[in-house]
Amino acid sequence: MEKKAINFKEKFSKFSEHWSPRVVAEMNDYQFKLAKIKNEFVWHNHQDTDEVFIVIEGAMDIEFRDGKVHLEAGEMFVIPKGVEHKPFAEHECKIMFVEPRGTKNTGDVESELTAEDDVWV
Amino acid sequence: MEKKAINFKEKFSKFSEHWSPRVVAEMNDYQFKLAKIKNEFVWHNHQDTDEVFIVIEGAMDIEFRDGKVHLEAGEMFVIPKGVEHKPFAEHECKIMFVEPRGTKNTGDVESELTAEDDVWV
Repeated sequence: MEKKAINFKEKFSKFSEHWSPRVVAEMNDYQFKLAKIKNEFVWHNHQDTDEVFIVIEGAMDIEFRDGKVHLEAGEMFVIPKGVEHKPFAEHECKIMFVEPRGTKNTGDVESELTAEDDVWV
Repeated sequence: MEKKAINFKEKFSKFSEHWSPRVVAEMNDYQFKLAKIKNEFVWHNHQDTDEVFIVIEGAMDIEFRDGKVHLEAGEMFVIPKGVEHKPFAEHECKIMFVEPRGTKNTGDVESELTAEDDVWV
């Protein structure tokens, strides 16, 4: 029986909202999520977990209180637990991120950008 | 201070061995590993964990006892805990995989393909 791969391009074609993470896979108690991002997100942190960003298409920056990192397609970065950060993308950027199931996109910060959790695509 | 992204192309340029996973990042107690693969791997499973494969460049198949999945660049698959599988790539394929720190590449199977654990690049 042929099983079906998870195809990022196909998944991205199914939603257009920015900063609205969609779960595509679970591994143990972790989730792999895709998002389209553009402009500034809010400063926030995740007290209980590291967070991985992988850029699939485009480019983004992640600002920290003590610097920043620039990420292009084919690059990743691990944001350590508890470290305040603010993602930013000048043009639309397509990313994958990995974090434990139940992690909120804005961490402990309540914002109009706080997204519903556990939405699959 | 500018922080440094993890660049897959740069990391892949630093090793050439097949079936020899290199760790590029840790997130909590999980590791992100890169590998170049070619030809057949061994049948094995991981009793304690799911395992994620993401194809970065090229194409691969993962055989299961009840079927298979074909993966190309920009595609991923989650192998459920305990499920026997055998990766295969006709031509060299560059992959990323994600699993808990300490996971052996051949699971419980001892093979000449069993690789040293926790080798970073």
